[in-house]
Amino acid sequence: MDDEHILKRYERRTDPTRVLALSDGVFAIVITLLVLEIQVPDLASGQTLAGALREVRPSFIAFLISFVVVAIAWAGHRDLFALIRRTDPVLVWLNILYLLPLSVLPFGASLIARHGEEPVALEMYGILLVAIAVTRMAIWWYGTGRPHLLFSPVNRRSRWAGFAVVAVSVVAYAVAIAVADTSPVISFAIYGIAPILYFIGLALARTTAPPGSPDENLP
Amino acid sequence: MDDEHILKRYERRTDPTRVLALSDGVFAIVITLLVLEIQVPDLASGQTLAGALREVRPSFIAFLISFVVVAIAWAGHRDLFALIRRTDPVLVWLNILYLLPLSVLPFGASLIARHGEEPVALEMYGILLVAIAVTRMAIWWYGTGRPHLLFSPVNRRSRWAGFAVVAVSVVAYAVAIAVADTSPVISFAIYGIAPILYFIGLALARTTAPPGSPDENLP
Amino acid sequence: MDDEHILKRYERRTDPTRVLALSDGVFAIVITLLVLEIQVPDLASGQTLAGALREVRPSFIAFLISFVVVAIAWAGHRDLFALIRRTDPVLVWLNILYLLPLSVLPFGASLIARHGEEPVALEMYGILLVAIAVTRMAIWWYGTGRPHLLFSPVNRRSRWAGFAVVAVSVVAYAVAIAVADTSPVISFAIYGIAPILYFIGLALARTTAPPGSPDENLP
Amino acid sequence: MDDEHILKRYERRTDPTRVLALSDGVFAIVITLLVLEIQVPDLASGQTLAGALREVRPSFIAFLISFVVVAIAWAGHRDLFALIRRTDPVLVWLNILYLLPLSVLPFGASLIARHGEEPVALEMYGILLVAIAVTRMAIWWYGTGRPHLLFSPVNRRSRWAGFAVVAVSVVAYAVAIAVADTSPVISFAIYGIAPILYFIGLALARTTAPPGSPDENLP
Repeated sequence: MDDEHILKRYERRTDPTRVLALSDGVFAIVITLLVLEIQVPDLASGQTLAGALREVRPSFIAFLISFVVVAIAWAGHRDLFALIRRTDPVLVWLNILYLLPLSVLPFGASLIARHGEEPVALEMYGILLVAIAVTRMAIWWYGTGRPHLLFSPVNRRSRWAGFAVVAVSVVAYAVAIAVADTSPVISFAIYGIAPILYFIGLALARTTAPPGSPDENLP
Repeated sequence: MDDEHILKRYERRTDPTRVLALSDGVFAIVITLLVLEIQVPDLASGQTLAGALREVRPSFIAFLISFVVVAIAWAGHRDLFALIRRTDPVLVWLNILYLLPLSVLPFGASLIARHGEEPVALEMYGILLVAIAVTRMAIWWYGTGRPHLLFSPVNRRSRWAGFAVVAVSVVAYAVAIAVADTSPVISFAIYGIAPILYFIGLALARTTAPPGSPDENLP
Repeated sequence: MDDEHILKRYERRTDPTRVLALSDGVFAIVITLLVLEIQVPDLASGQTLAGALREVRPSFIAFLISFVVVAIAWAGHRDLFALIRRTDPVLVWLNILYLLPLSVLPFGASLIARHGEEPVALEMYGILLVAIAVTRMAIWWYGTGRPHLLFSPVNRRSRWAGFAVVAVSVVAYAVAIAVADTSPVISFAIYGIAPILYFIGLALARTTAPPGSPDENLP
Repeated sequence: MDDEHILKRYERRTDPTRVLALSDGVFAIVITLLVLEIQVPDLASGQTLAGALREVRPSFIAFLISFVVVAIAWAGHRDLFALIRRTDPVLVWLNILYLLPLSVLPFGASLIARHGEEPVALEMYGILLVAIAVTRMAIWWYGTGRPHLLFSPVNRRSRWAGFAVVAVSVVAYAVAIAVADTSPVISFAIYGIAPILYFIGLALARTTAPPGSPDENLP
């Protein structure tokens, strides 16, 4: 077998297409399954819209928070894999490890929809979000540190910046887990506010980075 | 890093492929989950087909209306993104915002399947349909107004025409919400008839537009 | 706008990619949702494997039949769209019309899993299968009759042969519906045997057709 | 019709794209549906996290084992189809046959989640895993033995090595089924340990194979 054949086989084996197909499938299903947690309420005749909405409100808030969590995860996954030219077995399995807590999220959403005031539910939900963030950081760190997997090298500063953006959310979720026992309301609020902070942080990072600068590689 | 590299990286970051993969996944799942709302009836021995069909009729009508809503949304999304060459972060997040009410539609379908005569259920369903239409208009307006995101520019008249086609459905749904309290039957009927009007409007717009004219860009 | 631009825009608007993405998504979801109809039985300690299998047998047979129905539908859809180079709005909407009964199949499977001995359940299941077959014939007939939508023209004989293969299954299902009232067992048996006949018919058609002959275009 | 046309039509008919689209869809849905088996527990106020986790532990272990089974199946499917250039009807239907037990896995996971100590549940789960492995071996054997379906030929030794890796898991699962009746705990443990052994075996096989050697073709 000549060199060209070996090279082509290498390209086929390392092609990220199916990794993205599986991931996008899981993202799409998780984001759509979340709504199944919102139970159709028993509507009494003459009930007002406000009253009916009040009934499904806790479920709906848990749905909204989880929807945004999945959306941010997907957008970050898309930005990261826009840098990735090839995969290797470790990257493939890190990606599967990342899909694990993501696929458990509908369970977590159901948990805080039904038991949003229980510390233990808030702790379990927080552990899920930390697991999603940590595995995401692992993919980022592993992928951006291996030039042969990338379209073009990512410099040291960009790698740390990308790491830091996700690390901040880990800190926020750790606080939410820590205070769940004494102040469940604050814990719940952090889960709702964290995504908003993430948007602000990302917007700032992009605005302050000049075009073509390494910060454009943020995950 | 030279200019060619920066350009290629820009193309990869703005490539719409994964936006379409996520969207088509959500469309496919939502359109298939809708049927889960149709409960298998208890069939008494000797029951006629007509009798059995009568039992699942309200669920089936709610399913049919929602199926057509998703199908129209998908066809419009496909026509719009046939014009889109690149995405930017705003377009990506507008598209996610659009997937939000779409992913809630199985809940809405379940609501009118079980409580189709309740004003509050009809109002909530209408709010969902308005949210789908409004976010769709936002994507259309944002995307068609930015030539660097398009394969070829869309002129002013086409942009307004595309906007108007969806705006008409918003008006219809607003009427359905407004009359839900006093005439639930009329409200329900509007949800069933609106898609049909949409087809007629679209067919007319296409028929009257000469080939190559801007109206071919209708969403 | 010059001719080349109009041509390229035409190609983008008529590209079948997203039609296939939506269809494959629906096929994948329907074929996977079918299993949700098999209820986990209550297993008594000391129960034999045979006993446990007996308990889920009706559900499992309904699952198997429906799985094969979806698989044949997908394989036929793939063979047909291997001929299709471009879509037009009618073909797009015929395809959506085809996905409608397909997406209702999990409901039909559930129906015969729980009420497999009830004539009315067998009739409703048969109507679904006829609707899938008829819409499939409509896509086949419409698509193969329009050379501008095809990679290469399909001749008259092939069109009729493709039509006939599916038409035979419609006849079989019509018989199953007709005898459901008097002989539910025979009706159920036809649903199980029809796919097998389809395989035999297809194998014969392919075996008897010389390479490059029009019969290779069978759906 | 000239030779070039017949050749192009042949390529379109045998293109594996949609086979992979359907398969990735099924993989993504199965891996995400598994979590639906984990029931949200009733959390008593003041319950500890440990207590709540203990309640969902059996479901969670069943989920984890099944998640890894699907992930290994997907990774193996991806590696195999990286060798496949064209499909034929037999390969397409072998692949569908492979998706059959895979799509039943959520049922199997539910079975051992709720009845993990019942021999009959462990036997049924084992039969599913054997069916997934056997159909996978069939695809591997059929595909790698037909050079016209491959990018480059796979030699005899690689074919047997690929066969052996999966065959080992069949033996492990057969043992688990055999001992389910007398030692359900051991049976359950084998299902948990088998994937780990598979990883070790695969890592060893890849480490010992020099670059470009036939063992790189392992499934």
